[in-house]
Amino acid sequence: MADERHGTDPDETLPSEPILDVAHLGHVELLTPRLEQSTWYFRDVLGMEIVAETAGAVHLRGYGDYAMSSLKLTAAPKPGVGCIAWRAASPAALARRVAALERAGCAEGWIAGEVGRGDGFRFRDPDGHRMEIYYDETPYRAPEPLRSALKNQPMRYTGRGVGVRRLDHLALLCRDVAANRRFMQQELGFRLHEQVRFQRGTVEIGSWLSPSILHHQVAYVVDARRGAGRLHHVALWVDNREDVLRAADILSEHEIFIEAGPAKHNNSQGFYLYTYEPGGNRVEIYSGSFLVLAPDWQPVVWNEVERGTGVYWGGALPESFMTYATPDIPALRAAPDPVPLFDPR
Amino acid sequence: MADERHGTDPDETLPSEPILDVAHLGHVELLTPRLEQSTWYFRDVLGMEIVAETAGAVHLRGYGDYAMSSLKLTAAPKPGVGCIAWRAASPAALARRVAALERAGCAEGWIAGEVGRGDGFRFRDPDGHRMEIYYDETPYRAPEPLRSALKNQPMRYTGRGVGVRRLDHLALLCRDVAANRRFMQQELGFRLHEQVRFQRGTVEIGSWLSPSILHHQVAYVVDARRGAGRLHHVALWVDNREDVLRAADILSEHEIFIEAGPAKHNNSQGFYLYTYEPGGNRVEIYSGSFLVLAPDWQPVVWNEVERGTGVYWGGALPESFMTYATPDIPALRAAPDPVPLFDPR
Amino acid sequence: MADERHGTDPDETLPSEPILDVAHLGHVELLTPRLEQSTWYFRDVLGMEIVAETAGAVHLRGYGDYAMSSLKLTAAPKPGVGCIAWRAASPAALARRVAALERAGCAEGWIAGEVGRGDGFRFRDPDGHRMEIYYDETPYRAPEPLRSALKNQPMRYTGRGVGVRRLDHLALLCRDVAANRRFMQQELGFRLHEQVRFQRGTVEIGSWLSPSILHHQVAYVVDARRGAGRLHHVALWVDNREDVLRAADILSEHEIFIEAGPAKHNNSQGFYLYTYEPGGNRVEIYSGSFLVLAPDWQPVVWNEVERGTGVYWGGALPESFMTYATPDIPALRAAPDPVPLFDPR
Amino acid sequence: MADERHGTDPDETLPSEPILDVAHLGHVELLTPRLEQSTWYFRDVLGMEIVAETAGAVHLRGYGDYAMSSLKLTAAPKPGVGCIAWRAASPAALARRVAALERAGCAEGWIAGEVGRGDGFRFRDPDGHRMEIYYDETPYRAPEPLRSALKNQPMRYTGRGVGVRRLDHLALLCRDVAANRRFMQQELGFRLHEQVRFQRGTVEIGSWLSPSILHHQVAYVVDARRGAGRLHHVALWVDNREDVLRAADILSEHEIFIEAGPAKHNNSQGFYLYTYEPGGNRVEIYSGSFLVLAPDWQPVVWNEVERGTGVYWGGALPESFMTYATPDIPALRAAPDPVPLFDPR
Repeated sequence: MADERHGTDPDETLPSEPILDVAHLGHVELLTPRLEQSTWYFRDVLGMEIVAETAGAVHLRGYGDYAMSSLKLTAAPKPGVGCIAWRAASPAALARRVAALERAGCAEGWIAGEVGRGDGFRFRDPDGHRMEIYYDETPYRAPEPLRSALKNQPMRYTGRGVGVRRLDHLALLCRDVAANRRFMQQELGFRLHEQVRFQRGTVEIGSWLSPSILHHQVAYVVDARRGAGRLHHVALWVDNREDVLRAADILSEHEIFIEAGPAKHNNSQGFYLYTYEPGGNRVEIYSGSFLVLAPDWQPVVWNEVERGTGVYWGGALPESFMTYATPDIPALRAAPDPVPLFDPR
Repeated sequence: MADERHGTDPDETLPSEPILDVAHLGHVELLTPRLEQSTWYFRDVLGMEIVAETAGAVHLRGYGDYAMSSLKLTAAPKPGVGCIAWRAASPAALARRVAALERAGCAEGWIAGEVGRGDGFRFRDPDGHRMEIYYDETPYRAPEPLRSALKNQPMRYTGRGVGVRRLDHLALLCRDVAANRRFMQQELGFRLHEQVRFQRGTVEIGSWLSPSILHHQVAYVVDARRGAGRLHHVALWVDNREDVLRAADILSEHEIFIEAGPAKHNNSQGFYLYTYEPGGNRVEIYSGSFLVLAPDWQPVVWNEVERGTGVYWGGALPESFMTYATPDIPALRAAPDPVPLFDPR
Repeated sequence: MADERHGTDPDETLPSEPILDVAHLGHVELLTPRLEQSTWYFRDVLGMEIVAETAGAVHLRGYGDYAMSSLKLTAAPKPGVGCIAWRAASPAALARRVAALERAGCAEGWIAGEVGRGDGFRFRDPDGHRMEIYYDETPYRAPEPLRSALKNQPMRYTGRGVGVRRLDHLALLCRDVAANRRFMQQELGFRLHEQVRFQRGTVEIGSWLSPSILHHQVAYVVDARRGAGRLHHVALWVDNREDVLRAADILSEHEIFIEAGPAKHNNSQGFYLYTYEPGGNRVEIYSGSFLVLAPDWQPVVWNEVERGTGVYWGGALPESFMTYATPDIPALRAAPDPVPLFDPR
Repeated sequence: MADERHGTDPDETLPSEPILDVAHLGHVELLTPRLEQSTWYFRDVLGMEIVAETAGAVHLRGYGDYAMSSLKLTAAPKPGVGCIAWRAASPAALARRVAALERAGCAEGWIAGEVGRGDGFRFRDPDGHRMEIYYDETPYRAPEPLRSALKNQPMRYTGRGVGVRRLDHLALLCRDVAANRRFMQQELGFRLHEQVRFQRGTVEIGSWLSPSILHHQVAYVVDARRGAGRLHHVALWVDNREDVLRAADILSEHEIFIEAGPAKHNNSQGFYLYTYEPGGNRVEIYSGSFLVLAPDWQPVVWNEVERGTGVYWGGALPESFMTYATPDIPALRAAPDPVPLFDPR
C-alpha cells in the first residue's frame, strides 16, 4: 500500500543522491489544425514573437525566454502536443541521461535541432508522449527593433496583448500516473512536489514534478477517457497576478473562451486562467505558485476531501476541465468517466 | 491672515448652497511642435485611439471616455495647453455659468463644437488659460472592430501599450494661485479639496479643485518663473497601480524619459508617473487617489514641513518638476526661483 | 412597452433639471444574531476599526471613511439590514428632500443622530427598507495611535487583515424593482446607470442607481422569493483588484466561506468577492467598476442574452446568489423560483 | 584584461561540470543593539512569526519558509550580520563542500544547530563574513492556530502587516569583489548571473550569485569605506509588486524610514523597497526579478554607462545607499569615497 504521507511507494528505490541533470523545460511543440489562427492567437493576443516560419510551422518566443524559441506551432490534422524538449544541465548530464534512457528502452535516437536548439535525443514517456533532451542552445540575440532597454532581458517587452514572459510548464494526461511519474523521477531525476491520491492513497490521480526549484514543469494527471499521449494544457508565465486579470480582459474582448479562472489553485497555489487556442489546445496563463527550495521536500499529498474542487477560494473547475484534452476523444461508453479528478460542484 | 485650518480666507464669501453646474473635465487640447511624433506617443505607446484627423490636428480618446474625443493634438510652434473644456451638468446649468462668466468679464463668446462636442462658450481664467464650457455631446459609438464585449464600456480595451482609460485632470501653472482658485470656486462652483500654503498659510502655493467627488480635475500651482497660461501636466487615468508600473516598463522600453515615479504623492494620494510626450508637454499616468464624498469637506492644507518633498514614501521630485512647464521659458534672471514648490532633496 | 434603449418607461416624467441633493451613502446598519462574532469578522478579518460600543451595538469605520462611523452592527434575532442612511448635499438639500418624502407619504419623522451623525429624517422605500437622510456630521478625528502619516487620510492604514477603506454600496432585494427605482429617482434624485430587463424589456430585474458619479450606491434586484425589505449584500471598498485577491487569501485562511469571486461582473465592471459575515449577511469586498461622468448618461440595459451569467470572464454565480438574502426565507412552494436573475450555469 | 562579455577572467578555471551542492540560503542572523524594537519591526510591521526566544535572541520565520526559522535576531553592541547559513543539497553534497572548504583553509569547524537546523560547518568568506553550511533540517509544523488552509503552505498567511513570505537573499560589502565572488563559485558552486564592472571591465564593482535558478541569493558589492564583513542588506520576499507598494504604505504609517523605492532595479530587475530596521540594518522588501533557467547563462556585465543609477525607470538611489552599511564606519579621511557604486544623481 502506498505511504500516504510521503506519496511514494515503499518499494520504490530512489537514488540517495539527487540527479540534477535536467535544467528546465526548453521547448514545446503544439499541433494545430488551424495554424494561421493559432499564430494570430499566440502573437497578437498573447503577445509572443515570431522568430521563424518554416513550411507548416511557426516558431515563437516569450519576451523573457533566453532561447530563440520556446514554442513551435505545427500544422496537423488534430490538435495535441508534439515534442516536449528538456534542456540538460551540461554535456555530461546529457550523456548520462541518454545512457539511462537507452537502458530504459524508450529511446528513439538523435535528431537534428532547429531554430537555435542543438541536436536532441528523442524518447517517449510510458504513456507515449514524445520527448527530447538536448544541451546545445544558441541564445537569442534580439534584432535592433526588439532589443530591450534592459541588458539582462533577452527581448523588449513590447506591451502588445497579454505579454507572455516565458514558457512555464505543461500538464499531460496519461493512463498510469505512477508509471509516468516514476519514469520522470528515475530516468530524468525530476523531484516530486505534489500529488493527488484517492482511496486512502492507493489511486494516484495526479503528480506534479520539476527538475528544479520551480514548483512543477510537468504534471501527469489520469486520463479519464483512457486516451494516450494527450495534452491537458501548456502554461505560459506572466509576472504578476494582475497580468492574469488583464489577460482575462484581453481574451474577453477578443471573445475567446475562458474555461476557468482567473482564480487560485489549492495544489501548487498557482494563479491561473485557462483558455483554448483556436487550434483547440488548452492554454494556461499562469503566475504565482511558489518555489520549492527544500532539497528533501516531502511531496504534499491531497486526498479526496482535501483536494475538494481544486480551487482554493471556492467555486469549482468546470466539467470540461476533467474531460477535454487534445486530441479530443469520445467518452467511454460502458460507464461514466470512472475517475473524477475533481468534484466539479 | 489666512485661516490655516480651513484653507480659505475669512473675507471670502462662498455661496451657502453649492453650485453643482459643472459635471467634469471633458476635453483638453495640447499644442505640439511635433504632431506626428506626439500622435505616435498617444496612440502607439499610451494606447489611445484616433477618432478624427483634421488639418494640423488629431483627435484621440481613451477606451473608457464616453465622449467621442477627450484629447486634441494641435500642431503649433511651441508646446502648451490650448483649450480646456468643461462639460456642464445640464442646459440650465450651462446657461447659469455663461451668465456668471459674462458678469465676471472673462467671456470670449460662443464657438462651434467639433468631433461630437456641441457649441461651447469660451472664456479665460485669470492667468489666461483658455477654457470652454459646453453641454451638448454626442456619445461615442464604437465602430464594429472596436466594439467592446462589455455593453457598458464605450470601446474595446485593445491591450495596446499602456491602455489609457480616460482623461482625468490637469495641472496649470499661474502667477496668482488664490485668484485662479477663487475664480474656479465662484464662477464655476468647483470644490477646493487640498492646498499647499507656506509661510504660516499666507502664501498659497497650490490648490487642487474639482467639480465633483473626484479628488481634483484641475490643480493651480504657482509658476516659479512667472510665466502666463502655462501647463504643468495633463493626467490620464489607468485603473490600477499595477498599470502605472507596467506603463513605466513600456515607456522605458521605448526610451521615453520618465521624469518621476512611479510613486505616491502625499497630497491627493495619487499614484503617479510623469513623462514628456515628444512635443514637450508633461503627461502623467495616474491612478489611485481617493474620492471626496463629504459635501462639506474642509480643504486639507499642507505647510512647508508637512508638504516635504511631495512624495509620500520618501525620495523627492526632481528639480525639473518645479521649473519645467510648457511652453518652456527661461529662469528669472534677477534671483533664483523664488518660490520653491517642493524641496527637491 | 418599455423603451429598451433608455431603460425608462415613456410615461415616466423625470425632472428636466437634475436633483443633486444627496451626496452619498453615509451609513449602514446590519442586524446580526451573533454580534460578537460579527464584530470579530469586521474588525479582525476585514480590518475595520471600532469607534463606539453601546448596549447591543458596535460602531465601526473603514480607514478612509471621513465620518466617524459607516457601519453599525446591531444585535437582533435575525440578520438583515437595519437603517440605511444617506447624507444630503447641504442643509437646503436636506429640507427639499424631507419635503418631497413627506409629500410622497413614506415619511417616519425625525430621530436623534448618534456617533457623529446629526439628526436624521426616517422614511421607507416602497419595499419597506428603512432609510434615513441627514446632513450634520462631525468628521472623525483619529486618536493619536490611529493618526495617519497622511494628512488627507482620516485614519491610519493599520495593515490589519483585509484593510477595508470605506463603505461603498448596498444591494437590496424587492418585489417591484421599477417602483423602488422610480422612488429613488424621483424623491431622492438618484441617477439610473444600469438595468437588467428581461422579456423584451418588460420585466425589470435589477437597477443600479447612484446619487453621484460613483457607478452605484444602491442596487434594487427582484426578490425571487417575494420577501420584503431584504438585503442582498453590503459592499466595502478596497483600492485595488490585488486587495480583493488578498482578501480571498485572508478569508480562506480563516475558513470563512467565499460564495463567489474574486471575479469581474459584466454590469458595473465591479471586481468582487462575496462572503457571509458570521451573522449571515452577505458582504462584498469590492473594487474596480467605473465612474459615470456623463450627466446625461443613458442607462445601459442588459437583456437575457447579454446578461448571461453576470460574470464577465465566464463561469457563473452560484445558485445561492440568486436565492439567499437576509433575513433568509423559504422558497415559494407553488412553483420554482419564477424569476431567475441570472443563469447559474 | 577581463573579458567583458563573459564577466570572467580568462585565467580563471571553472570546473566544466557544474557543482550543484548548495540548495539555497537557509538562515541569516542579524545583530541588533535594539533587540526589542527589532523584534517588533519584524513581527508586527513585517508580519513575521516568532518561533523561539532564547537569552538575547529571537528566532523568526516568514509564512512560506519551510524551515522552522529563517531569521535570528541577536542582541549585540552594533548592528551587522552574524552567521549566514547555506543548506546543502544532500548529505554527500555537504561532505564534498566541507572537504573543499577545509582545503581552502577558511574552515572554522562544526557547531551544534538550533531551532530545527542540524549541525553546521562554519567558515568565513575572504572578506570575513561568517558562514555555515548544513544539511539536516526539521521542517516546520505549524501549531493549530497557525495551520494554513493550504496543505502545501507551511504556515497560515495571517494578514498581519507586510506579510513577508520567506527569506530571499542578502547583499554583502567587501574589499575585493572578485576574490569573494570566485570563492563562492569555486568552493560552493555558485553561478555568477550578473556583474557591474567599471573602467573597461577591469574593476569589479559588484557580483550577483546564486546556487540555483533564483537570480541571486548573495551579492558582493565593493565596500566604498574599506570596512570588513559588513552587511549591505538582507532581502525578504513578497509575492507581488503590489505587496511592495502596500509595504511602503505600512512602513510610512509607522513612520519608518524608507531609504529608496518602491522601484525597479535594472540589474536583477528586482522590484525593491529599502528600509532600516530599528537596530540599524538595511532590509529590502523584494519581489519581481527573474529566474535564470539557462545552465550556461553568460553573466550580464554592466559598465558605467549601462549601470547608470541602478534604477530602471529613472531617478537614482540616494547617497546613503552607497555609503551606509552595518556596522556603520566613518568615511575614509584621505579622500572622498573612491569607488562610486552608482551615480546618485
